[in-house]
Amino acid sequence: MITEKFPSRLLENAVNEFAKLPGIGRKTALRLVLHLLKQEKADVELFSNSLIQLRNEIKHCQVCHNISDVDTCNICSNPHRHPEEVCVVENIKDVMAIENTQQFSGLYHVLGGIISPMDGIGPSDLEINSLIDRVKSGTVKEVVLALSTTMEGDTTNFFIYKKLRELNVKISTLARGVSIGDELEYADEITLGRSIRNRLDFESTLSQ
Amino acid sequence: MITEKFPSRLLENAVNEFAKLPGIGRKTALRLVLHLLKQEKADVELFSNSLIQLRNEIKHCQVCHNISDVDTCNICSNPHRHPEEVCVVENIKDVMAIENTQQFSGLYHVLGGIISPMDGIGPSDLEINSLIDRVKSGTVKEVVLALSTTMEGDTTNFFIYKKLRELNVKISTLARGVSIGDELEYADEITLGRSIRNRLDFESTLSQ
Repeated sequence: MITEKFPSRLLENAVNEFAKLPGIGRKTALRLVLHLLKQEKADVELFSNSLIQLRNEIKHCQVCHNISDVDTCNICSNPHRHPEEVCVVENIKDVMAIENTQQFSGLYHVLGGIISPMDGIGPSDLEINSLIDRVKSGTVKEVVLALSTTMEGDTTNFFIYKKLRELNVKISTLARGVSIGDELEYADEITLGRSIRNRLDFESTLSQ
Repeated sequence: MITEKFPSRLLENAVNEFAKLPGIGRKTALRLVLHLLKQEKADVELFSNSLIQLRNEIKHCQVCHNISDVDTCNICSNPHRHPEEVCVVENIKDVMAIENTQQFSGLYHVLGGIISPMDGIGPSDLEINSLIDRVKSGTVKEVVLALSTTMEGDTTNFFIYKKLRELNVKISTLARGVSIGDELEYADEITLGRSIRNRLDFESTLSQ
């Protein structure tokens, strides 16, 4: 790395802070900081305060552990959602992705990560016990496991499955298959194999 | 764009603020904000306060108009630099780039932009009058024009040249030519043409 000669310690501080963010290199950090320097003081305060406020005031929903402004999040407190279906996801981005499809009307359970021994994350670091308690409380009829199709995701799926199979609850997982819009020749063989094995009745797909 | 359903207004605010930065899309903004959310409160405050402090306390050097923590910047107040050479640049990033080469021991003059009628930037929006006053004050023997080789840069160069040519000062500009490490066949023809016309005595390049 070239030595940077900053004309100002304040500038250097701000660049150092920005460069700590993931995927932001020092050149990008400098560009962003110089952009902020050209904005009105009030706008820079708005930017900075939005982050401090977020960090200090954010809550986690006591039911699903998604982040929320209130004790029980908008999804969990929505009377039109179906509390008997619970979709288990890794993090809040997955909740947003599934909500965007508008295909799920149940509630969520955010684990806060997946089991990953390499990163030192075990079951006790995740919201797995609270999921089991939630199922035991009796309302939940179906648990939809919606974790990544990685080794860690599969491990976590299997761990949760073992904990839940004694309880009276249906356990399902996301359908895997060829992505819509994908050409067959570019699909990987495991995905393609699964989508042949789990083939669907054609008529049932016509209404989707 | 897909509609985003944020689980929290605080989160949405912070993402909106981040997405105002140049080159930061909404997906990146969400990723950065969720990263900050996982950091300690004190670290988020450090990040935010570094920006507010920068914006509120930064000064511009009264001599060269570079940004600075003090009234006269470190370069202008350095007795080992040569005040008779002044390098005219567009912005502070250019100062840093030239400083990194360690090939210039004079002072700078930061214009704060270049003449660009399309963006509504005229000579009076830039630090051109202060440059002329600086030259008139008598210390400056050489002005090095180091602006971008764009139409706007050339316009600004020529504008400054017209203002200064009556004064007793040498006006030079950066050498243009084939970049070091470039293959000839990929050099554009204007650059290649200029580097042939302004060819150098070979022996003079041996010591560089």
